[in-house]
Amino acid sequence: MLETLKQAVWEANLDLPKYGLVTFTWGNVSGIDREQGLVVIKPSGVAYEELKAEDMVVVDLDGRIVEGRYKPSSDTATHLVLYKAFESIGGIVHTHSPWATSWAQAGRPIPALGTTHADYYYGQIPCTRPMTQQEIQGAYELETGNVIVETFKELNPAYIPGVLVHCHAPFNWGTDPHNAVHNAVVLEEVAKMAYHTFQLNPSTTAMDQALLDRHFLRKHGANAYYGQK
Amino acid sequence: MLETLKQAVWEANLDLPKYGLVTFTWGNVSGIDREQGLVVIKPSGVAYEELKAEDMVVVDLDGRIVEGRYKPSSDTATHLVLYKAFESIGGIVHTHSPWATSWAQAGRPIPALGTTHADYYYGQIPCTRPMTQQEIQGAYELETGNVIVETFKELNPAYIPGVLVHCHAPFNWGTDPHNAVHNAVVLEEVAKMAYHTFQLNPSTTAMDQALLDRHFLRKHGANAYYGQK
Amino acid sequence: MLETLKQAVWEANLDLPKYGLVTFTWGNVSGIDREQGLVVIKPSGVAYEELKAEDMVVVDLDGRIVEGRYKPSSDTATHLVLYKAFESIGGIVHTHSPWATSWAQAGRPIPALGTTHADYYYGQIPCTRPMTQQEIQGAYELETGNVIVETFKELNPAYIPGVLVHCHAPFNWGTDPHNAVHNAVVLEEVAKMAYHTFQLNPSTTAMDQALLDRHFLRKHGANAYYGQK
Amino acid sequence: MLETLKQAVWEANLDLPKYGLVTFTWGNVSGIDREQGLVVIKPSGVAYEELKAEDMVVVDLDGRIVEGRYKPSSDTATHLVLYKAFESIGGIVHTHSPWATSWAQAGRPIPALGTTHADYYYGQIPCTRPMTQQEIQGAYELETGNVIVETFKELNPAYIPGVLVHCHAPFNWGTDPHNAVHNAVVLEEVAKMAYHTFQLNPSTTAMDQALLDRHFLRKHGANAYYGQK
Repeated sequence: MLETLKQAVWEANLDLPKYGLVTFTWGNVSGIDREQGLVVIKPSGVAYEELKAEDMVVVDLDGRIVEGRYKPSSDTATHLVLYKAFESIGGIVHTHSPWATSWAQAGRPIPALGTTHADYYYGQIPCTRPMTQQEIQGAYELETGNVIVETFKELNPAYIPGVLVHCHAPFNWGTDPHNAVHNAVVLEEVAKMAYHTFQLNPSTTAMDQALLDRHFLRKHGANAYYGQK
Repeated sequence: MLETLKQAVWEANLDLPKYGLVTFTWGNVSGIDREQGLVVIKPSGVAYEELKAEDMVVVDLDGRIVEGRYKPSSDTATHLVLYKAFESIGGIVHTHSPWATSWAQAGRPIPALGTTHADYYYGQIPCTRPMTQQEIQGAYELETGNVIVETFKELNPAYIPGVLVHCHAPFNWGTDPHNAVHNAVVLEEVAKMAYHTFQLNPSTTAMDQALLDRHFLRKHGANAYYGQK
Repeated sequence: MLETLKQAVWEANLDLPKYGLVTFTWGNVSGIDREQGLVVIKPSGVAYEELKAEDMVVVDLDGRIVEGRYKPSSDTATHLVLYKAFESIGGIVHTHSPWATSWAQAGRPIPALGTTHADYYYGQIPCTRPMTQQEIQGAYELETGNVIVETFKELNPAYIPGVLVHCHAPFNWGTDPHNAVHNAVVLEEVAKMAYHTFQLNPSTTAMDQALLDRHFLRKHGANAYYGQK
Repeated sequence: MLETLKQAVWEANLDLPKYGLVTFTWGNVSGIDREQGLVVIKPSGVAYEELKAEDMVVVDLDGRIVEGRYKPSSDTATHLVLYKAFESIGGIVHTHSPWATSWAQAGRPIPALGTTHADYYYGQIPCTRPMTQQEIQGAYELETGNVIVETFKELNPAYIPGVLVHCHAPFNWGTDPHNAVHNAVVLEEVAKMAYHTFQLNPSTTAMDQALLDRHFLRKHGANAYYGQK
């Protein structure tokens, strides 16, 4: 069942330690089969080195386990809210990668400061508002998804493929699980460089809009001319 | 004698260089057999790459060597004080891991700033008061243990599995030697992210109590729902 | 065709991940055959681990593809401007190496603060002015080359083998592709140390001119006495 | 000739990249045979990966090459001054290790802030005064040695086994080449932690003298009790 997607989700999970995004089991990747309305996600708290493709858990969009001998990631409810709200996305990744998490803990969005950012994120990477006591004490993981969706009310998730959850850590997404991890690596690199940029020049402001447009559209959309396509 | 515990203590010691917590021999792990009242600990000043399981030293709770051809770690007296005072713990680790040590040198406790911290430490990680001249010139390693115990007068060591010793470095503990090292890795990661958080936002305050509760209790206690149990 | 140069350019490209200068495909190296007026450059968006020497693209100085089944790097036009303007150089490298990029995003040149810098760069490493909207929306990559050349109006590119492009990242060059990468590694190291130097002492000023002379001329020019020549 | 010392110097040189102290050829180690008055040192500008034990150069204390097909390190004159002035030392290492070099560029000595420092350095690690124009333009490498010796007029080099040369980088020494590299690794670690300590608490002052005494004397001198001796 969904063998190809399981394989892709498993490989994307293994990329998390490979790219230095996770310590221990602090991360999870999922992917969706839009036609069948089924999501494949990492099991909760299993070490990456022991993980096999067949360990991936299949859930429906209401969170019911359709296949799998393990419990799915404790963040599954967050993933499901995002898949329902952001119809263009095919994969989601959550980590506590240290640079992005430091920005999330500081409660600061990451402005676009240079072309590395502009190549992947079409503007500032937002930070959610703090969650309320009710949200935290209620269906916490589901509400985490809701506060992300609220943050993107005026934003296009296909153009800004990630968010910082306040006092928590980043969530990223992409066209598929592999692309979601790619965007998570970029976020971590961009967060690191933005940190150092502000230390070097605390009054740095967001980059020129024309330069942001040029770089984002060089890699995305109908007029892209980067790469071999 | 205590072969299983020796093996566990030896493996936990080897995890110190694996996780980047130590330079040279700057770290040691011990474990306790509560029934027999015996502690197994790394020998003093032996390089990790030459260490074998049978090199571990067995001491009783008064510090007398029960078995072993080596001298035990020079920090043994500190370990013994902690085992006597903190009855719930089964393993202890001491390192000079650089991020935690920087906080210890600055004499600052690490407040809970995000969910990574909250998943393992139920509140601020304290820093001991400076030791007095008498304590330093007396039974120094034993007094180091005493000042840690004093710091935890109002704290539960099972909920805050680590401490910064002022102008020195961290001590961590856990349910067993492996878990103690796990908590030391988390401390180092949390110390690094808290450092960057304060550089990004010097007025950051401790996280919301409800969020701290939610994350700690998601992984600990009767209502935990993280992982496969 | 140009097999030796293709091999050199390919090896220099593989040195980018080896020295930690690139994430994904964020970098490219080229080399020139001055007699034939032909440039060999990395193809656009191909992963380093899949790259072969024969994948390198040959272009003439007007950017026409002379040989190769791939599209050349999207930064090719920048490389060509530099080869035409800086007649002494034989190789060019562009990366988004994180320390140098942080300075570029901060819009700050890197002053010569110590002998590591002085061994390779004979003075401050400049940062270009911001590009205008016309330049960005016009022939952007060509204009990037032009703004670098403008920055070097009063500077000798053989003595300052690199530049920071404002809100973008560094370009480096050298006598050949290998030497260009060497200079890029030095820039990254110098950028990192200059960052920490200013954090330690915000009022640090450029090093003594006599010391700068001594170190640069110890390694460069007729009276060099470093190494085995 | 001096095969054992050549082997030791060669191994100590290879430890420089192993411990991350050098980029390219930016470092050199030497050792002395006090009875014969001969120094063994790395050849100038030879890559570590190509270095063999028999490539080490033998010079006398006046810098004359006694054996070897290569030119000795361009810093040889500095080493010789130190061997003549500091009679207790048996090995010297010079690197541009990035944390220590950042302090040297900032012109700041590194105060003793914690027990990691106190275990190896009995007090502040000094930074030399800036060299004069005459010194720089004269016998520069010899004068570099002289300014180090001047810095230690009131200090015991056996108790403070290293120095920061202003706007340049560190020199370390020890009882033999291996021990000198050990002290260089410690300096780099101490420099990194002191940097972060001051960022966390800019008003940090030197550690308590009693604690400094206790830790240094726990590892050095007649009453040492660390390790297996």
